[in-house]
Amino acid sequence: MSSDPTLTPPERAEPVETDPHTWEHRSQPDDQRNPPAGGGVESTDVVVVGAGFAGLQAATSLLEGGLEVTVLEARDRLGGRTHTRTLHDTWVDLGGQWIGPGQDRAADLARRLEVATYPQPTTGDDVVLPAGGGAPLRVADLADAMEHSDLVGYLNLVSAFDVVCARVPLDAPWEAPGAGELDAQTLAEWVRDQDPPAGAALLFEVGVQAVFAAASSQLSLLHAAFYTAAAGGWSRLTDTEGGAQQDRLVGGVQPLAERFAEPLGDRIRLCVPVRRLITDKEGVVVEADEGSWLARRVVVTLPPTLAARIDYDPPLPGGRDQLTQRMPQGSVIKFHVVYPTPWWRERGLSGTVLAPDRAVGVTFDGTPPTARPGIITGFFEGAHAAEAARRTSDERRQVVLDVLVDALGPDAREAIDYIDLDWSEEPFTRGCYGAHLPPGAWTAHGTALRQPVGRIHWAGTETARAWAGYIEGALESGERVAEEILAAERKHRRPRGDQRV
Amino acid sequence: MSSDPTLTPPERAEPVETDPHTWEHRSQPDDQRNPPAGGGVESTDVVVVGAGFAGLQAATSLLEGGLEVTVLEARDRLGGRTHTRTLHDTWVDLGGQWIGPGQDRAADLARRLEVATYPQPTTGDDVVLPAGGGAPLRVADLADAMEHSDLVGYLNLVSAFDVVCARVPLDAPWEAPGAGELDAQTLAEWVRDQDPPAGAALLFEVGVQAVFAAASSQLSLLHAAFYTAAAGGWSRLTDTEGGAQQDRLVGGVQPLAERFAEPLGDRIRLCVPVRRLITDKEGVVVEADEGSWLARRVVVTLPPTLAARIDYDPPLPGGRDQLTQRMPQGSVIKFHVVYPTPWWRERGLSGTVLAPDRAVGVTFDGTPPTARPGIITGFFEGAHAAEAARRTSDERRQVVLDVLVDALGPDAREAIDYIDLDWSEEPFTRGCYGAHLPPGAWTAHGTALRQPVGRIHWAGTETARAWAGYIEGALESGERVAEEILAAERKHRRPRGDQRV
Repeated sequence: MSSDPTLTPPERAEPVETDPHTWEHRSQPDDQRNPPAGGGVESTDVVVVGAGFAGLQAATSLLEGGLEVTVLEARDRLGGRTHTRTLHDTWVDLGGQWIGPGQDRAADLARRLEVATYPQPTTGDDVVLPAGGGAPLRVADLADAMEHSDLVGYLNLVSAFDVVCARVPLDAPWEAPGAGELDAQTLAEWVRDQDPPAGAALLFEVGVQAVFAAASSQLSLLHAAFYTAAAGGWSRLTDTEGGAQQDRLVGGVQPLAERFAEPLGDRIRLCVPVRRLITDKEGVVVEADEGSWLARRVVVTLPPTLAARIDYDPPLPGGRDQLTQRMPQGSVIKFHVVYPTPWWRERGLSGTVLAPDRAVGVTFDGTPPTARPGIITGFFEGAHAAEAARRTSDERRQVVLDVLVDALGPDAREAIDYIDLDWSEEPFTRGCYGAHLPPGAWTAHGTALRQPVGRIHWAGTETARAWAGYIEGALESGERVAEEILAAERKHRRPRGDQRV
Repeated sequence: MSSDPTLTPPERAEPVETDPHTWEHRSQPDDQRNPPAGGGVESTDVVVVGAGFAGLQAATSLLEGGLEVTVLEARDRLGGRTHTRTLHDTWVDLGGQWIGPGQDRAADLARRLEVATYPQPTTGDDVVLPAGGGAPLRVADLADAMEHSDLVGYLNLVSAFDVVCARVPLDAPWEAPGAGELDAQTLAEWVRDQDPPAGAALLFEVGVQAVFAAASSQLSLLHAAFYTAAAGGWSRLTDTEGGAQQDRLVGGVQPLAERFAEPLGDRIRLCVPVRRLITDKEGVVVEADEGSWLARRVVVTLPPTLAARIDYDPPLPGGRDQLTQRMPQGSVIKFHVVYPTPWWRERGLSGTVLAPDRAVGVTFDGTPPTARPGIITGFFEGAHAAEAARRTSDERRQVVLDVLVDALGPDAREAIDYIDLDWSEEPFTRGCYGAHLPPGAWTAHGTALRQPVGRIHWAGTETARAWAGYIEGALESGERVAEEILAAERKHRRPRGDQRV
């Protein structure tokens, strides 16, 4: 076992409550599977659609604000785009797995619910597989793998990009100075205009794909700048220590969602995909195959492209609909390769691999604090994910192992397990990490992103004004939508109170 | 009445069958509104989802090929993105209204069904409202309004673009030489690289917005090149005489759909939005609120973004889903301004207005062959449509009249009627003229566009290999999907025949 202090299990190393093997059962107790008795209509104040972090936060805040809630979740589990699985006596996160500085809501939540964190392991040398082939470069720091001119070029590029980001108001990107111009070009176009050295552009592109699960040529510059600004800048987004990849949760992230959900009890119904929202003057009828609910208001937390697939009666405004047509989910397949031990540590390697022109662009050490088993975690992203999606999981395993053998040595072939998840195949997600906007969408349709449509309110990490695309953003959106509804309900109630005076 | 020979009513001037006022009733006879009797499941060979030209062509060809069909249409009318309305004793097309050379299927259909065509009126001078303000320019030809250098620059730009277009194979744009590079940039980026004079770039952009109902900055260069190539080149797309705006149908286009549908009789069910497709080994159960159908195969002809909103069981492959997340419908509001007579003709004006930086970029003379009433037809497109969508129809009328007064003179204020349609508000269309692909979608996911998923086949103008986005493309896609199904069914049947021998 490594003596690396960053790998020392934190004080409370025991994962959530009991045995990590049991959570999958705990996540779907029988009483949460039940539709309303007799197929009748159940009444509540607010129906929240989706039991990811946005939905759970919205429900929690609404309940604290004095409203009754019902949370309808399509899946047979909680957590949305976080998804923890057990294997080889440990856990792996097939979805969101990191929290970092600036993500205060997520950190507070873990602290409050006594879910311990531990630092993402980084000790040891990183390996770079140079673009265009050639011997792997073993480096203490990625900067060491770069030509001096590329490094300077990269830092200049990031600095110039952060200047663009600083122009974007987080609550209204469409109001940025020069928003029209920013939204009429792709991030790739902007990078090209900066004329960076090739090595600098390549490193930036690897970062873009790791952050957005899409190429810079697919992103509106305005969107890329908004998303980056919402995270506090490029370094915050892309760094491990000091950045969004800094810390992991002991036991995985989905158990955090499960603890968060506990006070909501049987207000949460699993396996209930919402099909239709029918609004009238009295409220909203929420229809699912499993039953119907009547609520004064509804919160939809789904990724926008999936929110559009609910049948709305009356239909949503055209601007809202067109916005959701322009918010595709990124393309990513996340994998974990399991070895008996983290053998690369003995050789002074960190498990971090950067392979700019390989199908797998980046890997990390995914080993749990107990250091058994050893796990390498990585991603197929963007076009690589789309290509890999047409292969079987076994074929993808071979592609991954080839990269790892090239980077870490022949022992990488001796994996004892491989697991991956193509998020585009998940019918209730259809892509990760989140949505991105191509040119023209923010400025033409952005105002519709959070604007309630009558009694229907929008949440989910894509609607966040901080860390959009992250667990933190999901929590922020849940808080915001709850405030929105509580304010609207207070306003709604006051006249009646006045009349009684 | 004008003596312009192009305005002489053609030999068969009488619109479809009887009175143009009656078609709206004919389009929804009671027997077509009926769900299957008793809420039971009706069996058929093929269910076609959508009764636009793609669905009608598919159903017709399948029936001719010996298969029984049921066509389920969500709307209370036929014709999809063509939509004819009557007013002031004439008709207006609120959707697709032109056919042109190279659109042989559409022209043949009109001929076969004895729906007469007449040339789009163009006689008289056009008016250009110069970008940046200034007096209107009255010109015999748009070219006359341009500086010589702008005109040469425009012709060079078009010529260079047509060279790019020629590289794109119409049945597989993702296989174009250098497809990755073409798909990693926007059309706007490519135009900028050609460094055209500003006036040339502006005219090209007006053309792009008129064709795609989206800005060049929203379009993958590969997509723009495919779409243009599928129409036979830039001039074919953008010209009136000799191009896609050459001819109109007497009585409007929707009546053509209605005649086309007649032989299908009560095989067409209106007001049946399909909600779910459940595939098993035996076939596909097609579920709607109005009933269920059992078919061996299903053809979905909806715009891809709407096809994604059907609930598929089992879920569609991730690649198909992600493709449909990346095919937003364009943004367009089409309007007709009605005057007692086409008074502009008396002043030697054509009614064609080009206003590159106004909310209404382009108008045409929309007057029927009888020359009563006079109609000016035009469009809010792209970002202008998104902006105008937030106004009322009355407010849009003011915007339109302001442009027409500036271009044609104060008499333009004396309109007796105004009608417009924001296609983004139509719940069963959600944007026109068709879908466009931002960078990265064709190369990552394009193979899924026409590839059947089990027993589910894809048609609709977006799937066409010729004139994608036009009535012609819809017809081509209907023919293609019928051939696909007839071939699959023959293949499926042969072994059983062999066993009997």
